Amino acid sequence: MTPLILSEPDLRARVPLDLAAIDVVEAAFAQLAGGGVVMPPVLSMHLPQVNGEVDVKTAYVTGIQGFAVKISPGFFDNPRRGLPSTSGLMVVLDALTGRVRAVLLDNGYLTDIRTAAAGGVAARHLARPDATRAAIFGTGMQARLQLQALRLVRPLTHAVIWARDPARAQALARALDGPDCSFTATADPAEAAAEADIIVTTTPATQPILQADWLRPGQHITAMGSDQPGKAELHPDCLARADLYVADRTSQTRLMGELRAAIAAGTMPDGEHPELGQIIARTHPGRQSPDQITICDLTGTGVQDTAIATHALDAFSKDDPNA
Amino acid sequence: MTPLILSEPDLRARVPLDLAAIDVVEAAFAQLAGGGVVMPPVLSMHLPQVNGEVDVKTAYVTGIQGFAVKISPGFFDNPRRGLPSTSGLMVVLDALTGRVRAVLLDNGYLTDIRTAAAGGVAARHLARPDATRAAIFGTGMQARLQLQALRLVRPLTHAVIWARDPARAQALARALDGPDCSFTATADPAEAAAEADIIVTTTPATQPILQADWLRPGQHITAMGSDQPGKAELHPDCLARADLYVADRTSQTRLMGELRAAIAAGTMPDGEHPELGQIIARTHPGRQSPDQITICDLTGTGVQDTAIATHALDAFSKDDPNA
Repeated sequence: MTPLILSEPDLRARVPLDLAAIDVVEAAFAQLAGGGVVMPPVLSMHLPQVNGEVDVKTAYVTGIQGFAVKISPGFFDNPRRGLPSTSGLMVVLDALTGRVRAVLLDNGYLTDIRTAAAGGVAARHLARPDATRAAIFGTGMQARLQLQALRLVRPLTHAVIWARDPARAQALARALDGPDCSFTATADPAEAAAEADIIVTTTPATQPILQADWLRPGQHITAMGSDQPGKAELHPDCLARADLYVADRTSQTRLMGELRAAIAAGTMPDGEHPELGQIIARTHPGRQSPDQITICDLTGTGVQDTAIATHALDAFSKDDPNA
Repeated sequence: MTPLILSEPDLRARVPLDLAAIDVVEAAFAQLAGGGVVMPPVLSMHLPQVNGEVDVKTAYVTGIQGFAVKISPGFFDNPRRGLPSTSGLMVVLDALTGRVRAVLLDNGYLTDIRTAAAGGVAARHLARPDATRAAIFGTGMQARLQLQALRLVRPLTHAVIWARDPARAQALARALDGPDCSFTATADPAEAAAEADIIVTTTPATQPILQADWLRPGQHITAMGSDQPGKAELHPDCLARADLYVADRTSQTRLMGELRAAIAAGTMPDGEHPELGQIIARTHPGRQSPDQITICDLTGTGVQDTAIATHALDAFSKDDPNA
């Protein structure tokens, strides 16, 4: 069997951020909670001499025909060379034989999609069904994609964007504003948070932006920017203030998510916390009333990679039954 | 830059086990000892439900333009399906930007070559220069390749092969026998060891085969079969009996090499031991006299993967300066 080699343009054309992508990521989280998953710790290589790092993630999900091994380089001097910081690929191995089925030369595109899809899953299961107003912190690729994912699962009519650079927030709001959903920008993060039903933080902040006394009953917060031990977007008091804290994977969020700083500050116990998959699988009740405050802490998991990579392969094998 | 995609036949045709391969692996070991290497612990995923495992290895070597991330699946029910147990690929990333330069769809071929090349490096630096007689334990791919590597660095005129199955040992000896080097088989491992200047063990044994009282002054032993915590080819007394024990990487051999069982048996201390790269770099004196017994414990390292993968790319870029 010759492996299928797919390029970034192939994948961009055929694997959009849509409800199907959200559904496969949701199913993978449910499997993770159900125990049919082998997911080793992330292999992380730090390369300070070239201002870079490489992460390798994988997860074997029982019942899925393939599993992904993802190689994610981040080389932060690349923008000076006119290149994006992140790139990489996913390799799909056959779940029964380990043979290479496909190499997805996505340069990180599928990671963008599966990360935004997880935000959609979190909102679908934790945000109030009648949520119409969102606040987005950040203006990068994930700010756009998280908004797109939210709109697939909740009837948003307005979103406000905050960023450290107000000009960028204004530019993004102008670019996205439309008849179905209006977009505005603000230079005041407290103002952004005040009116939102859903807050999504998408920044690489190392100092908390969202403060606990800004939170209001009924809000849902998805924090997806922190994926390294030095990062934090929510003040540690936010987690204590919330009625429900949910991790994508507690073993990761305690090391590199918002939970890490909250444990260090003593506002959260370093123990078991509910995981997103448990809410999906209904082994944890999740949000119990419209007034609760919920937080979902997303650090990115190998099951999402396996889910999106095999979803991508499915999109291509529909054309070619021999693929 | 579109990544170069190379197939197993491409690589077999252009990357032989030769002195050039031994030289690049030797240089990588020297770098490992010199400190210009970042080599994270192996990512290992065990999949008992399908009798499989996946290892991911990588190493960044300062001064080499690329670095490899190797994905090595071993699925041990594959032979029943007419497939080899091991397969996999190497991805070569640019050392400055992290961009994918090449995908080497080698199905484990380059691992075979770099593993045998390390045996050649060990013999070149630890075996007596006048070594003419080898004993090989095992009859698999590495038995053949280790013999080939030995013959590149030492003037072998005879080799004896032992295997648990005597018929296999005889068949391999018949296949390899020739005018420059004679090959015989034996059913007695003590007899195989008795006359050898160099002993190479290449088996997946979990109980020791080579006994300490078989060893004779002047011998060099390379043990390359053990690469998992349950494996061992040498009796723990062998390591204590030797004048010099050398690891490819002590942090690995103490967990998955011959050193592991020797530490457990109390015959070797769980501390610092010389590494092959130190002997190459002459920061450790190595063999000090023709009568010493030396042992080299090879578990396989990411620097070998980076060395062979970039060597392979060089072989192809000679054709095409834009590759």
